[in-house]
Amino acid sequence: MTTATAPKHLILADGDFGPMTSKTANSIIRYQADRVVAVLDRGHAGRTAHDVLGFGGGIPVVGSMAEGLALGATSVLIGIAPTGGRLPDAWREWLREALVGGCDIVSGLHTFLNDDPILAEAARIGGRTITDIRRPPADLPVAGGLAKQLEPLVVLTVGTDCNVGKMTAQLQLVRGLNKRGMRTRFVATGQTGIMIEGWGIGVDAVVADFIAGAAERITVQGAEGADVVLVEGQGSINHPGYSGVTLGLLHGSCPDAMILCHQASREYIGDYRKASWLRIPPLSEYVEVYERIAGMVHPSKVVGIAMNTYDMTDDEARAACERAAAETGLPCTDPVRFDPAPLYEAIEQAAHQKRARRAT
Amino acid sequence: MTTATAPKHLILADGDFGPMTSKTANSIIRYQADRVVAVLDRGHAGRTAHDVLGFGGGIPVVGSMAEGLALGATSVLIGIAPTGGRLPDAWREWLREALVGGCDIVSGLHTFLNDDPILAEAARIGGRTITDIRRPPADLPVAGGLAKQLEPLVVLTVGTDCNVGKMTAQLQLVRGLNKRGMRTRFVATGQTGIMIEGWGIGVDAVVADFIAGAAERITVQGAEGADVVLVEGQGSINHPGYSGVTLGLLHGSCPDAMILCHQASREYIGDYRKASWLRIPPLSEYVEVYERIAGMVHPSKVVGIAMNTYDMTDDEARAACERAAAETGLPCTDPVRFDPAPLYEAIEQAAHQKRARRAT
Repeated sequence: MTTATAPKHLILADGDFGPMTSKTANSIIRYQADRVVAVLDRGHAGRTAHDVLGFGGGIPVVGSMAEGLALGATSVLIGIAPTGGRLPDAWREWLREALVGGCDIVSGLHTFLNDDPILAEAARIGGRTITDIRRPPADLPVAGGLAKQLEPLVVLTVGTDCNVGKMTAQLQLVRGLNKRGMRTRFVATGQTGIMIEGWGIGVDAVVADFIAGAAERITVQGAEGADVVLVEGQGSINHPGYSGVTLGLLHGSCPDAMILCHQASREYIGDYRKASWLRIPPLSEYVEVYERIAGMVHPSKVVGIAMNTYDMTDDEARAACERAAAETGLPCTDPVRFDPAPLYEAIEQAAHQKRARRAT
Repeated sequence: MTTATAPKHLILADGDFGPMTSKTANSIIRYQADRVVAVLDRGHAGRTAHDVLGFGGGIPVVGSMAEGLALGATSVLIGIAPTGGRLPDAWREWLREALVGGCDIVSGLHTFLNDDPILAEAARIGGRTITDIRRPPADLPVAGGLAKQLEPLVVLTVGTDCNVGKMTAQLQLVRGLNKRGMRTRFVATGQTGIMIEGWGIGVDAVVADFIAGAAERITVQGAEGADVVLVEGQGSINHPGYSGVTLGLLHGSCPDAMILCHQASREYIGDYRKASWLRIPPLSEYVEVYERIAGMVHPSKVVGIAMNTYDMTDDEARAACERAAAETGLPCTDPVRFDPAPLYEAIEQAAHQKRARRAT
């Protein structure tokens, strides 16, 4: 970010604003609503964020860039994460309009907007800045096991799929753990987490040989002065497209403990994208595989389940958590809907055990 | 490659020419010796490739770029793969000298030499070409399970570590299988394989989200008109630095069968680099983990073991293969030193089983 005062975001989510399709938009609205002036999606123009998402209050959805600018936006934040991360062609003209009209741009796309000659020229003309969140540092190392040696407890969220709530679970936990007296740091590994925290590396955007090295670097950085480091997970160990990122992150960050994240109503990998050829196996299989594969580099235990129940009634949600706990023998809660306490306690216990191990 | 006639390579391996330290150099010498005029390594100047490697005949090792040029080199091929893949600073001056002196450059480093202003300018002056083997295509997809549907048998080599002989095993197999009447294609996924085959994608050099997508694309491409596709493996499922590449490649290529590659005398991951903190577990554990993790996306079996015994006597080598076969119940041979037949037969049997499965 280049603005000293907080930016006022217009979130661009055209054609995709919704509970499961606009992950970045939704997290910025959930955690930094005071920075959002509007969402741009022609399909929902005239409604509010709350109408579309079930949270986010009266933030208006507008149908054009001009309306967003008129509401005082100082920044356009790209709020969708399309498969592959590339910029829809039609958006280029809107972004040019925004830059010339006095807005900065914040983007987590794989296509770096600073490399787009039209947008770079518009930024120059408007005197504005384009921030490509996913552009990795140039000097990443190959991982060398440094995260194995850390003193604080390292906790990684792992998932049954993309977009099940791995980042949200940790953002819910970090404040609660700090209140309970554990000095807790969140380590962002994806575009949205970096936008919220202001630092991190998008590990899915680094050159493949350096995934673990990037994870190692930011885990070590996050560990300074912390009792607990919560590393944001990515993808899933059986995701046909992204499993490499998941495993590199797992072996680079060397977590002592993992929290398994799942969306209770999801049956297929990627089915929020209608790509339903791979059925999600039982949670107990994930627990076993994640522990097995993590343990080949650094011993790690799944200590709890974070269940995403956004599309259920309270009764259904409670039943889903109880089923998962019964199947796996692990504490399970939806840390957005219910009390996160079972997960706080699981993390505190793991931290206590690690201190005891290191003392002997 | 830009030359219509075969290039005459000077292989640059300064300070690192040796049986385990100059993987690219060694494979080019093994499979394309007729294209190599000399190796540049000041530490071994005056010796021959055979003196240093135990193969490669009378190819001379020289101590300067000028000597290599005098021997008629038309191309400098970078023959070492340093951790991280970056260019040693001292080499830049040599490469400049070569370009100005009329040589092309072929490089598999992560640092693209075309992006180096000094080298790019020297290439322009000399009218020569720099080929960055690892530069990935710009339009890679996220993998979508396309390789699951292929008709030919897909075989991936998987390893207990980097640099154990995954590519060499397959290059040994491909000619033999073709002779036995199976139309067999080798799919290169790393710099050396691409140099030898003339096509492929270095999957360790793509943006992390596209590892599996890159693997999928070249596996599908290699399958055309083939009975068997041999996909070059990378890294190891428990390599602390590179496991993400390994898993992305595994899930993107959807192999039906795997060949596990191991160097018999190696005890620690990376110990050829003296980074010995992670002990290599038993082969049977690799068989189990590779099958488990592959099977979450596409069912796959380890069908044989390729043992690298380069530093053993024949008796020791035979004993190592027998121990591995006894431990895992799988056929095992060193396809460089001994008859590869047990691996041919394992692949033919797997191909037969796949045809039978698809027919029902």
